[in-house]
Amino acid sequence: MDSIKIFAPATVANVACGFDIFGFALEEPGDVLRITRSEGDGIVISNRVEGLQLPLDPESNTAGIAVAKMLQSMNTKAAISIDLIKKINPGSGIGSSAASAAAAVFGVNELFGRPYTTIQLVEFAMYGEIAASGSPHADNVAPSLIGGFVLVRGCDPLDVYSISVPDNLYCAVVHPQVTVNTAEARAMLKKEILLRDAVTQWGNAAGLVAGMYSANYELIANSLHDVVAEPARATLIPEFHKVKEAAMQAGALGCSISGSGPSMFALCKGMSTARKASEAMSNTFTKNNIANHAYTSSVNAGGARILN
Amino acid sequence: MDSIKIFAPATVANVACGFDIFGFALEEPGDVLRITRSEGDGIVISNRVEGLQLPLDPESNTAGIAVAKMLQSMNTKAAISIDLIKKINPGSGIGSSAASAAAAVFGVNELFGRPYTTIQLVEFAMYGEIAASGSPHADNVAPSLIGGFVLVRGCDPLDVYSISVPDNLYCAVVHPQVTVNTAEARAMLKKEILLRDAVTQWGNAAGLVAGMYSANYELIANSLHDVVAEPARATLIPEFHKVKEAAMQAGALGCSISGSGPSMFALCKGMSTARKASEAMSNTFTKNNIANHAYTSSVNAGGARILN
Repeated sequence: MDSIKIFAPATVANVACGFDIFGFALEEPGDVLRITRSEGDGIVISNRVEGLQLPLDPESNTAGIAVAKMLQSMNTKAAISIDLIKKINPGSGIGSSAASAAAAVFGVNELFGRPYTTIQLVEFAMYGEIAASGSPHADNVAPSLIGGFVLVRGCDPLDVYSISVPDNLYCAVVHPQVTVNTAEARAMLKKEILLRDAVTQWGNAAGLVAGMYSANYELIANSLHDVVAEPARATLIPEFHKVKEAAMQAGALGCSISGSGPSMFALCKGMSTARKASEAMSNTFTKNNIANHAYTSSVNAGGARILN
Repeated sequence: MDSIKIFAPATVANVACGFDIFGFALEEPGDVLRITRSEGDGIVISNRVEGLQLPLDPESNTAGIAVAKMLQSMNTKAAISIDLIKKINPGSGIGSSAASAAAAVFGVNELFGRPYTTIQLVEFAMYGEIAASGSPHADNVAPSLIGGFVLVRGCDPLDVYSISVPDNLYCAVVHPQVTVNTAEARAMLKKEILLRDAVTQWGNAAGLVAGMYSANYELIANSLHDVVAEPARATLIPEFHKVKEAAMQAGALGCSISGSGPSMFALCKGMSTARKASEAMSNTFTKNNIANHAYTSSVNAGGARILN
């Protein structure tokens, strides 16, 4: 019997101008999974966090779905037990389901002697995302596995790249305790957008990448605008505009919705500005009677890793 | 009486995935303008190329319009004479009107002791583009003035950046002698596009910038696709698909329409591949009885400059 404990970080997807193509890893929170391989067949999932409601049927749990695809690909039978010590709240918009799937495939890959590359692990983990959100996307699973800031240039075929991050780029994330369903948030978006808006968005997506490589914080700030998803989804987050304004007043380079929400993120130059932005955003939710959790992190955080 | 001779290069705009946001300068061809400042008032434009039909009324010539805006901004009266020695064919899709406007504002700025920054010159030159194409865009005038590869993140307000170019990136450009009207080519595009296509396009725009900064030619190649303008505009260029196929067979990283056409460009790793691609594209047009001009150039070409 082999057993391993894995950490996989929460992630911020979309990053304002990069709907479905950008994502980055946080230092915390993250999911911890104990994965055990033994003789036999079948996947068993257990929840080790009291009070948390999770689907434990392997066919409806993102970690179970991803690991099943992996075992099928290896044409191997094994009994895999997955103990979930979830520290990312489900439905928070910071890649909760993605982190569990990422940790699970990372751990199983270790237990089988690393037969797969990281990109192949991203592909397995994406199957879990289809179940969670109704569409295949890699902008949470890829940064959770790889770490740092990731460009998902395309999903079919999967084409993923690490983007250089300036040393002093930090992030504030605040999770208000309200519920946003990922599939519903996706359904809010129109199937067609104005070409004019699309040009604005790809100008900003290109600008953000150029700003990252050239450590040009002014360009990063100029590029952190979302004219596609944010205008529709902001209505799902109570006090969105006040919280964004608070982050900007605190000196953030930009602030938008993390994934499909309800968490909001702000990118900042320097850890102290990120702390101020985090506090300002959290206080604004609190003043409006919305309980919340706040985090600050480097954007250069690592990806999935083995814990002792 | 002061007089100065200016060269401003032809440019490739859009660059497949970057409709209205990307453009780069070529080493040749380019427009040469002799600009003379004397006492008095009024702009006079002359054409020094036999057989070329050009609007010489300053109010309908891109160089005249741009210089008029500049003089107005300086609140100065001067007699400016512009002798156009055009080497870029009007209507070729490689920034013919933009190069004249760029050279004119660059030259006048020199004659007045450089009161304006390059970005301000781009703004003046853009007024000429409104007259030429019906919309304000900077993806030809900016690279013609600045040189190299340029990102126009936004036009209102103008926000322009030079993008790092890998040393070994070269370009083939072939201009078939057919007529495409820029305003008509813009009118071919729908006002709305599928969100799915928009995501593909901004993934590629971000990918191209990342590929340029990291000198990752595979990523550059993967990103050089246009799902927005090319599918509509390819019909304006006879034998488009055969010419593109010829470029790809010759080893190009990607091939698409330069601006709104009819010129086609191919980006290549290495000058010898660019020469092969240029020859293959040119031969394909020729075999189909379409006369054409072919060029090869570094993508790191300079912008507008003073000639002796």
